[in-house]
Amino acid sequence: MKYLEDTIAAISTAIGEAGISVIRISGKDAIKIADKVFRGKRKLEEVKTHTAHYGKIVDASGRVVDYVVATVFRAPHSYTGEDTVEISCHGGIFVTRKVLETILEAGARLAQPGEFTKRAFLNGRIDLSQAEAIADLIRSATELAYQSSLSQLEGSISNKIKKMRDDLINLCSLVELELDFADEDLEFVDKPELAKKIKDAISEIDELIETFKFGKIYREGIKVVIAGKPNAGKSSLLNALLNENRAIVSDIPGTTRDIIEESLNIEGVLFRVIDTAGLRETYDIIEQEGVRRAEEQMKKSDMILLVIDSTDEIDEDDIKLYNRVLDLAMNESKRCIVVFNKVDLLNGKQIQNEKVLGDFPVVYVSALTGQGLDKLKKLMVEQSFLGTNRTDASVVVTNVRHRDALVKAKQSLQYALKSLEEGMSGDLVAVDLRAGLNHLGEIIGEVTTDDILNNIFSKFCIGK
Amino acid sequence: MKYLEDTIAAISTAIGEAGISVIRISGKDAIKIADKVFRGKRKLEEVKTHTAHYGKIVDASGRVVDYVVATVFRAPHSYTGEDTVEISCHGGIFVTRKVLETILEAGARLAQPGEFTKRAFLNGRIDLSQAEAIADLIRSATELAYQSSLSQLEGSISNKIKKMRDDLINLCSLVELELDFADEDLEFVDKPELAKKIKDAISEIDELIETFKFGKIYREGIKVVIAGKPNAGKSSLLNALLNENRAIVSDIPGTTRDIIEESLNIEGVLFRVIDTAGLRETYDIIEQEGVRRAEEQMKKSDMILLVIDSTDEIDEDDIKLYNRVLDLAMNESKRCIVVFNKVDLLNGKQIQNEKVLGDFPVVYVSALTGQGLDKLKKLMVEQSFLGTNRTDASVVVTNVRHRDALVKAKQSLQYALKSLEEGMSGDLVAVDLRAGLNHLGEIIGEVTTDDILNNIFSKFCIGK
Repeated sequence: MKYLEDTIAAISTAIGEAGISVIRISGKDAIKIADKVFRGKRKLEEVKTHTAHYGKIVDASGRVVDYVVATVFRAPHSYTGEDTVEISCHGGIFVTRKVLETILEAGARLAQPGEFTKRAFLNGRIDLSQAEAIADLIRSATELAYQSSLSQLEGSISNKIKKMRDDLINLCSLVELELDFADEDLEFVDKPELAKKIKDAISEIDELIETFKFGKIYREGIKVVIAGKPNAGKSSLLNALLNENRAIVSDIPGTTRDIIEESLNIEGVLFRVIDTAGLRETYDIIEQEGVRRAEEQMKKSDMILLVIDSTDEIDEDDIKLYNRVLDLAMNESKRCIVVFNKVDLLNGKQIQNEKVLGDFPVVYVSALTGQGLDKLKKLMVEQSFLGTNRTDASVVVTNVRHRDALVKAKQSLQYALKSLEEGMSGDLVAVDLRAGLNHLGEIIGEVTTDDILNNIFSKFCIGK
Repeated sequence: MKYLEDTIAAISTAIGEAGISVIRISGKDAIKIADKVFRGKRKLEEVKTHTAHYGKIVDASGRVVDYVVATVFRAPHSYTGEDTVEISCHGGIFVTRKVLETILEAGARLAQPGEFTKRAFLNGRIDLSQAEAIADLIRSATELAYQSSLSQLEGSISNKIKKMRDDLINLCSLVELELDFADEDLEFVDKPELAKKIKDAISEIDELIETFKFGKIYREGIKVVIAGKPNAGKSSLLNALLNENRAIVSDIPGTTRDIIEESLNIEGVLFRVIDTAGLRETYDIIEQEGVRRAEEQMKKSDMILLVIDSTDEIDEDDIKLYNRVLDLAMNESKRCIVVFNKVDLLNGKQIQNEKVLGDFPVVYVSALTGQGLDKLKKLMVEQSFLGTNRTDASVVVTNVRHRDALVKAKQSLQYALKSLEEGMSGDLVAVDLRAGLNHLGEIIGEVTTDDILNNIFSKFCIGK
């Protein structure tokens, strides 16, 4: 592979002022290039694999760039499966770049995002779903995301898919064998038996697809919009929810930069709450543009918290607004929770608005006193997993690419089944079985294209 | 030392989503604690120093936390001089914390800021000025800061101070020897010779103190305020200066959080430009509070760029404002550069304001076309080093703590010289020589107190 001919390098740790940074060099000339810039007791060419060596990095003119520890991993016993040197240098931004520049000047090429992991995949160290699991593990911000990516890294998806593929390969072989002996009118396959096996495979795939309903929540969390009239206490509610969580999630950077998101970690579920500063304004001036923007946010969300001031008098505009929100929630099948806020100010009075609301779950809180917040949080988690069956899944599909491949595989198997049941030629059955097999193979990368690979690895960070 | 009895651990790489993070464990139980959580082919207790081992981290219940590489450094051949294990795990924020928590639960204590380096110092691996150099190296954002901290790490200050101390110790011994034999009226010391040696030591110290004038600039850079009337083009000038630099400095975080600073790297000098958004406003409304805030910023600065619109008509208020700025600059001995902006709009017209300005260097620019910017940058660097003699210093003092210790050492030696010249008792001379010796010793940590150490290491980041 031309791709693997050259040697790549990148800073593999996060960028920032810290004790140490690690620069990774991987490729067939990794050790040779490292030796050009590293001065220790011995040349790295001469040292054993998996050994660490103190020394200095010098540039082409012999000037000291930094004092470092270089660790050598010889192929195939490295992350990438290639010769690898990890340079642990002082963790400053400037000095780390200096060291990297020195290594690049010595002949390494700056790695592309995810290129180390891509090489690990291309060299057969891990399969594609495991490569994706590494990216997910790094990104994970909650217990559920972390656990599901770790189990995927350990091969939960891989093993399941491999087993399903093995079964299908057997079926395929039988059908194709029969085709080879078509002239002799031999029958290797019991048709009803074959149909049953395809049906079994389909239902196995269905089970996996079903897990994506909550798997997606594990990996991506739930996008929440807090909606409601001005002064319903939306900000206070957000702050009350955040306060207890701030310490846990505050330094996890938002995943999108164009919208300000606050992150809430409730029972391991990541709730990404869209900051409603903008929304609030749009409800102040109820005009076309404002409503349009608010709706856009809600359409993008998974869950709407409709906050209502319990002490508020009700008028026609209110009802219009609520119905608008609730309509949207129903038609776009969003989860919705109605939150009656400020119950501490009720003093025994009746909540007027209560009657206008439909079948959505309701919770009574006071953002000020904290009353009812635990109930709200429990309800948020419950509603997130509503309609999903997350009790007894040993393998969970969290990745939309895997889900899409499973859906396509299922479709192919359904075609195969149809052809079989309609007594069509074995050719047709075999073609569809093969197609299903290929779609499953995409998940673990047994069957793949440059487009798929580029799409996956470009989402990695540089240095991984 | 009780202090070194326990085993510490911390994340030593920057916090962020990245390929890998490194957690460092150091102390006499480092390997034992690592073995509690690490499962590889062999126990780490059994492996050789400076070897790396693939395995998994498991928590107390046996659950896998992450897949890692553990590298063992046995005392004294480690950064801290103690047994050390470095765990290289997946670089996510959540997963890295999980691994750290698991290690802490196994018996390590979370390290305080700078505690690894403090141990390196206490264990005699480095001296105090080298410990400080490590912090400076990590923080360095320009070539000059980087080079000076690297040379300090290599022992430039240490060696110089040690040599000066050796000389003084010899003098001290002679004086003290004479005191021991005072009854016998023996004279070991030639008084004029002694006086000359003390004078030599003082002038050596003076030379070092002199280097601090530019050493401080190497390490801390120059704080710049851009002052001027509204619409003089202050923001445009800042942006024009930043545009060429943005790529170099953009992701180096500001050192202070309360004031927004922009960083400019010109010829290796860091110019920390205080964002004048606030200042601009205060000149719009020339009232007490505004002027006070503007003056405060200028007082804190090292350099003022007074920006003047070349096409502007001049009035009494203008002159008042300029004089105010210039007075401040002169009385607080700030460097000041007068920047005539918008020269592209002059069309041959005379600059009206030119005559009101005093002896400050002047530069004519257009932030719009870029005309004159190179000249301005050159002038900024020149002015920064005005009155300093940075040509032939092989050792540069960059740290205010070192400067202060040198000033105190010099004072003590001056006292000793005075006592000697006034024919005072040898006791007095010896006491002051010892005091001078001690002040020099503070720099490299031969003489130190808990206060000094705490003050130094608390400024480090955790994990270093």
